This record gives sequence, structure tokens and C-alpha cells, in this order.
Amino acid sequence: MSFSSSFDPSTLEVATNLPKSKNIMYGQAGGVTAVINASAAAVIETAKQFPQYFGDCFAAINGIQGVLEENFVNASQMSDEEIAHMHSIPGAVFGACRFDLDPLEHNPTQYARILDIFKAYDIGYFFYNGGNGSMVTALKVAEYCQSNGHDVRCIGVAKTIDNDLALSYCSPGFGSAAKYLATSFIEAGMDVLAMHKTSTKFFVMEAMGRDVGWLSLAGSLIKEVIPNAPVIILPAEKAFNKEKFLAKVDEKIAQQGYCLCMASEGLRDESGNYLAIAGVEHTDEGDYTQLGGAGRVIADIASAHLDCKIHCAVPDYLQRSASHCVSATDWQMAYDAGKAAVIAALQGEHGTLPVVSATSESPLEWTMQSVDLEKVANLEYRVPDDFLTEDAMDVSDKGHQYLLSVIQGERPLSFQNGLPSISPIALTLCDKRLKSFDASKNSHY
Amino acid sequence: MSFSSSFDPSTLEVATNLPKSKNIMYGQAGGVTAVINASAAAVIETAKQFPQYFGDCFAAINGIQGVLEENFVNASQMSDEEIAHMHSIPGAVFGACRFDLDPLEHNPTQYARILDIFKAYDIGYFFYNGGNGSMVTALKVAEYCQSNGHDVRCIGVAKTIDNDLALSYCSPGFGSAAKYLATSFIEAGMDVLAMHKTSTKFFVMEAMGRDVGWLSLAGSLIKEVIPNAPVIILPAEKAFNKEKFLAKVDEKIAQQGYCLCMASEGLRDESGNYLAIAGVEHTDEGDYTQLGGAGRVIADIASAHLDCKIHCAVPDYLQRSASHCVSATDWQMAYDAGKAAVIAALQGEHGTLPVVSATSESPLEWTMQSVDLEKVANLEYRVPDDFLTEDAMDVSDKGHQYLLSVIQGERPLSFQNGLPSISPIALTLCDKRLKSFDASKNSHY
Repeated sequence: MSFSSSFDPSTLEVATNLPKSKNIMYGQAGGVTAVINASAAAVIETAKQFPQYFGDCFAAINGIQGVLEENFVNASQMSDEEIAHMHSIPGAVFGACRFDLDPLEHNPTQYARILDIFKAYDIGYFFYNGGNGSMVTALKVAEYCQSNGHDVRCIGVAKTIDNDLALSYCSPGFGSAAKYLATSFIEAGMDVLAMHKTSTKFFVMEAMGRDVGWLSLAGSLIKEVIPNAPVIILPAEKAFNKEKFLAKVDEKIAQQGYCLCMASEGLRDESGNYLAIAGVEHTDEGDYTQLGGAGRVIADIASAHLDCKIHCAVPDYLQRSASHCVSATDWQMAYDAGKAAVIAALQGEHGTLPVVSATSESPLEWTMQSVDLEKVANLEYRVPDDFLTEDAMDVSDKGHQYLLSVIQGERPLSFQNGLPSISPIALTLCDKRLKSFDASKNSHY
Repeated sequence: MSFSSSFDPSTLEVATNLPKSKNIMYGQAGGVTAVINASAAAVIETAKQFPQYFGDCFAAINGIQGVLEENFVNASQMSDEEIAHMHSIPGAVFGACRFDLDPLEHNPTQYARILDIFKAYDIGYFFYNGGNGSMVTALKVAEYCQSNGHDVRCIGVAKTIDNDLALSYCSPGFGSAAKYLATSFIEAGMDVLAMHKTSTKFFVMEAMGRDVGWLSLAGSLIKEVIPNAPVIILPAEKAFNKEKFLAKVDEKIAQQGYCLCMASEGLRDESGNYLAIAGVEHTDEGDYTQLGGAGRVIADIASAHLDCKIHCAVPDYLQRSASHCVSATDWQMAYDAGKAAVIAALQGEHGTLPVVSATSESPLEWTMQSVDLEKVANLEYRVPDDFLTEDAMDVSDKGHQYLLSVIQGERPLSFQNGLPSISPIALTLCDKRLKSFDASKNSHY
């Protein structure tokens, strides 16, 4: 697995009508992935290869909130060492946000503010590295600017650990989370294998995933290491049936002495209610239900049924920030997502999102293909039925091969003094050019 | 950090009265560590270097239970590839157990059975790789055999992730769990650092530790990577005071916008009650309280106090089986523990446990020194007050340096097809020589 970041810029056919020397605005939004900063590095590095078309690349602190508040870093002035470091560190180097603009008709002030900002910084390109919803907001911003006489092209940079991005083979960020979860589940499985005779016979691990169960499927990869491992997968797409689940647990324990389960946090019962809610956040836009605890609920159900010790692991944020267990495939893909966004802009695109188009599955090879940002935002990639076994409590061969394809390769990571070298980069904020603006009155999502 | 497994056997002064060609019994008991199998490999490999003193090395399946039930592997006949694989795999290669013998006076049948077994297999050495209690039981077994005319020497092989082993600089197994927890906490910290402005401001991770808080201290290592990270450590030794805790959370969030907490699962309130109990297991010997959920309790307390999103991670078994994040220092130490047990036997010891005696702390250098097994079993190594700050909610410089010393170095691990090469070893059981015995009537602990 070789990581390729460079290409020959002279081979690229650039759109004929492209404005010259316009500046870039880049922002990160939504939940982070272990590789989102590789996308950031790709945007910065690729843009630098086309100095005739791009001026400076400004990065907004905390996504669109930083745009509103004029909190920017001039990423083009960051050192080569800082950009290289960005390739590997988790989190979001420029800060992400759970913050979205209001609809234009409700809060035109926000849009007018951004137009002022984009004019003041001569922004011609807006690359937004976020979830579907926030990328569409970025597009609305660009269109507002265009209709007010300031040409801004908007291209999305794909990322999500949930893998719910439609029209794409997979989402950048998913492969690393899946690799981390599979690795952890296998290791814990070795633990239970060693202990089950006189101790823990049931172990459950909770994977992230509100509506889609992609990450829970990673548990099935344990069979690559522990052949015929007694595993139960409970993806968010399938209603949880307690009786069928416990029958399966009994069957596994009768056959092999123990049972390992990977469950989506977004698991619902047959009435459509979440098994577990960690909390409800009251916002101006309504209640935001924070999930969590489905693993504990499953553990309690198993515990009440079985006369043995049970254990439950909830990796939570660990699964989306595990820089020490990144899939080299996913890392490359995240880089490609950022690079493809810049190339799409050079080719005159606007309102598009480069997604992953597989040209081979084993080993996975791909190209980035642009799709319509608004079209993809209205779709959701859910686990297809043929990726699951007939009882929907395990992964089919087809699903297994798919998962294997995205976790291939180990991204190297430097350690210093026994710990990963992933220090945050000290960012130098640009001096402000406009008057201040309070973004805190705006919506959360 | 170089891993050394060999030495010149001719340099060792062997006890003059040592019996010749006696066989070895080795067993694994209690909770596993990520490196316990390195100790197993060390026992087997070191014994092989002294063919004039040791015959075969038998490994009991599931520790003392396997001894009773005559479930053995002749480890001396395992291939070099299998032994090499044993160096890296998590879990317990021969199966561990949460099972201990009854006291001799309550159940002499068990002891008579083991005497029969040890005679039939010509066992002269019993190496038991377990917790304090089970190692002492092994010693009682050896003494019973001796008093019945069959000479068996018993040496303990130290292991525990909890680090509560007294008279030792640290416990083999602790360094890897600490390194895993520190790495995970740092990565999650980078996540919260990126998100806190508009999302999660408080994150808590639950570390194992029933009575001792050593593993929770690993959270403090985050400051090596995120300077001045806003961290709160809640070790099991210190009663949880809600008001002081929330005041500290408020202080951290006011200063830096977010707060990261690492808490022991065994945290108790000021009345001495556990904050959270996952379940109670009813055994013949009384109730066994399974802890878990302290992290969630802390998260709920913070959530009720703060007007923001909070997150909670519970790595559970992942912290004691993370073969992909093993401290090379700890790995070497676990190997040394097994090797030292065999050397202690060669030097005529009985009833001892080789522990870690540091000769230098930075970098950590050590020799293995034997201590009295019964003496050490009655002690507990708790976090000393001077390893904590004055408010006992963070780690002092002294504690920080100690933690750093045990996590140094990254043990390499092979991956295959994107996943760690940690398949269980297919074990070939020895043909039985005695009539069958039902161990299931015996006690759990």
C-alpha cells in the first residue's frame, strides 16, 4: 500500500474559464474521523501545486462558525513540517463544529456576513469537509455569493465514519474506524476465549452508528483471525428481537462455550424505539437525542438470561480518533478526497462532491468521481440485506469481503517517549479585517 | 528497546541438590494481560536451555482446573513457530481461569488428585502465572505434595494489569494496559479538543481497577502530547467527592473550554460504596461484585451539571488485550518474569516470586529479584499519595515519570489481511493417564 500524494500538475486539463489567483476557504465540520486531517493536508498541498489558479488557502477555525467569526489560519503559510504532521494526527486540526447556518430566509444576516468575509478575503473556492447537511449549507452559501455578484465555487470533501454516504463505494473515515473496531473486537475475543470456561461467556461491544449499522459489521472480521468465532452482529438497520437474540446467544454458548456480540448504538426495538438514549440535548431547533448505552442494555439482557459473568465495552470516541490503528487504504482515500476536491475545482466544477468509485475490490482500487452534492445529500447508504446473513445477525461473505477491502494496510505512526506523536499544531490566526460578529446566536444541529 | 530472550546457560550457578530431568507444570490464571503469553513463552524457552534439569514442560488448560482435570499440552513439543507466535498473542494461550482450590481442610480430595497427577507426570516444578491468591494456592499444592513424599518446587510468575503487586517496581502487564489507555485517552482528547467549541465539552474514560487506581493515572500522560491538557484523574484510592469534582470540571472548562476525565471502575463515594456495580455473581463462596459503569455515573453527574454534550468510553477488556499497542518495556518484563521463574527454580528456590527491581528509572532498567510468595500475597501496592497532586485529582511529577517509565517502546506486531496476526494456537492435548475428575464442584473466586 503506497501512499501517493503527488501527481504531475501539467497533465491536468484545467477549465478554460477559471478565474486566476482566487483564494480558498477550507473548513471541517461534524464528527471527526481518524483521517480527516489527511484530507485537509491534501487540499493545501494540491492547491499549492497550482499557484496560477489559487492564491492562499485559508482554513476556518471550527468550520462555518469560524467563517462567520473571521477566525482563520492562512494554511498556505504553514510549514512543510506542520503539513506533514497533519497527515497523521487525529481530531480536526482546524477544529470542527456541530453548527450549521440557518436557512437563508430565516437568517439572511449570516449569509450577508459570509459574503462580506468572502469578498474581503477574495475567496473563489469553498471546500467544506463535513457531513451531507453541512456541505449543502456550504453550497447554499456559495450560491448566495454568486447571486450577489461574487463568484465562489463550492466542492465538498467527503468524510464520515458511519459510511452512510450514498453513491460512494465507502466513506473516507469508515475504513479506519472499522479496522480499529475489528482489531479491538478480535483482541477482546482472544480474552474471552481464554477466560470463558470459568468466567465471562458473553461480551458485547458497542459501535457507533445512529441509523446505519456499518461499523457493527466490523465485528464479523474476527473470523479472519479466530476461525468460526461465535459472533452476533446487531446492525442499526434491523429491529432488535430479544427472543431471537437470546436463542442465538444460547446456541453460540452451547456450541463454543462463549459468545461475542457487536451492536450498533442506534439499535431499535421492533416498535422503533432506541434501546438506549444517553441524553437529550434541548436546542433552539428541537431536541437532539444523544445515543449510547445500547451495549449496556444488550449486556443486561444477556446477563438476566445467562448465569455467568458478562462484559461490555464502549469505545465511543476511540473508534473515530484511533490514529494508531488507521487503515492505510482509508488514509489514502481521505487524502484523495481532499485532492479530488481541488482538482474538481480546477476542472470548473461547482456543487459537487468527489466520491469513491471502485475499479477493483480485491485489492481495492478506486478513482474519485464527482456526484451532485444536493443529490447525494438526500440519500443514505444503509447496509444492504445481502451484506447480512438470512437471520440478519451476522455478515454474509459479500459483506465480509467488502469490509476486508477497506481495512487493508497499516498506516505508520511515529511514537515519542512511548506515546503517539500527534500533538496539536499551534495555529496562528490571521489578523481580522472586518468588524466582529457573534455566531453564538445561530443554530445548532 | 531491544528484546532479549537468550542468555548463556553455562554462566548460571545451579543449586547443587537439584533433581534431574523433572517435568514442569505451567498454568495461567486470573484476568489476562496483553503480555502474559510472553511469560509462557519464556518459561518454555528457558526450560529448554537446561535439558539436564528439566524434562517436558506441560501446560495446564485453564490453570489449576486443567491440572485437576488432566487437560494438558506438552509445550515442549510445540513448534518454534508456535512459541514465537506465543510471544505476541493476547488472551491466555493455554486458557486462564477464575477458579481456585478450596482450602485443604475443606476439600482434601482436590489436593490428593493433584498429587496423583503430579506423580503420574513426574512433575518437579510448578510455575503458576496468576494473581497473588492463586499463586499462593499453587504453593499450598506444592507443599502438600512435598509433605506426601513428592518433591515439587513452586515459583510464581507475576502478572496483573492492575499494578497492585507489592515489593515490585511494577507488575508485568501494567505497562501495556497503561500505554493503551494513555494512547486512547490522548486520541479521544484530540477529538474533544476539535469538537468542544460547539459540541462535547466533557469526556470521561473508565479504567479498570477495583481497589487500586494505577490505570486511571495513565490519563495524565496526555500532557506529554497535549501540553497542559485539562485533565481530571479519579483513582480508586480516593473517595469521590461530587462537589469538589464538579468544581474542578467547571474550572477546567472555564479555563480551556473542555475537560477530560479518567476514572477507576472501582471508584467509591465518601461512605465507601462503589459508584457503580455492573452485576453481582452468586457463587458458593458468596457474592462476587462485578464492577463497571463508574464512567457512566461520572458522565451522568457531569451531564446533570453542565449544559453541554458529554461522552463516555469504557474500554473494558480492550485495555488488557490490546496486542497492537503493547509497551516494549512491559513485554520484555513479562518475558523476564517467566524466565526468572525458571532460573529461580534452577537456583533451588521454592515458594518465591520474581519481581521487578528497578536499577534505573529513566530509562527503566531492572533485574528480577525473588520475594517470598506468601509475604507478597498479603500486601497490596496502592497508588502512593505523592504520586498524586494535593487535591488527588491529578498526577504529580513523580507519578508522571513513573508512568512514563513503564510505557516506553512499541512492541512490533504483524498484520495479515489488514488484521493483527494473533490467531489462537491449535493445541494438542496429551492423552490422559488417569481416570477422569470433575472439577466443576469446586470454588470460584
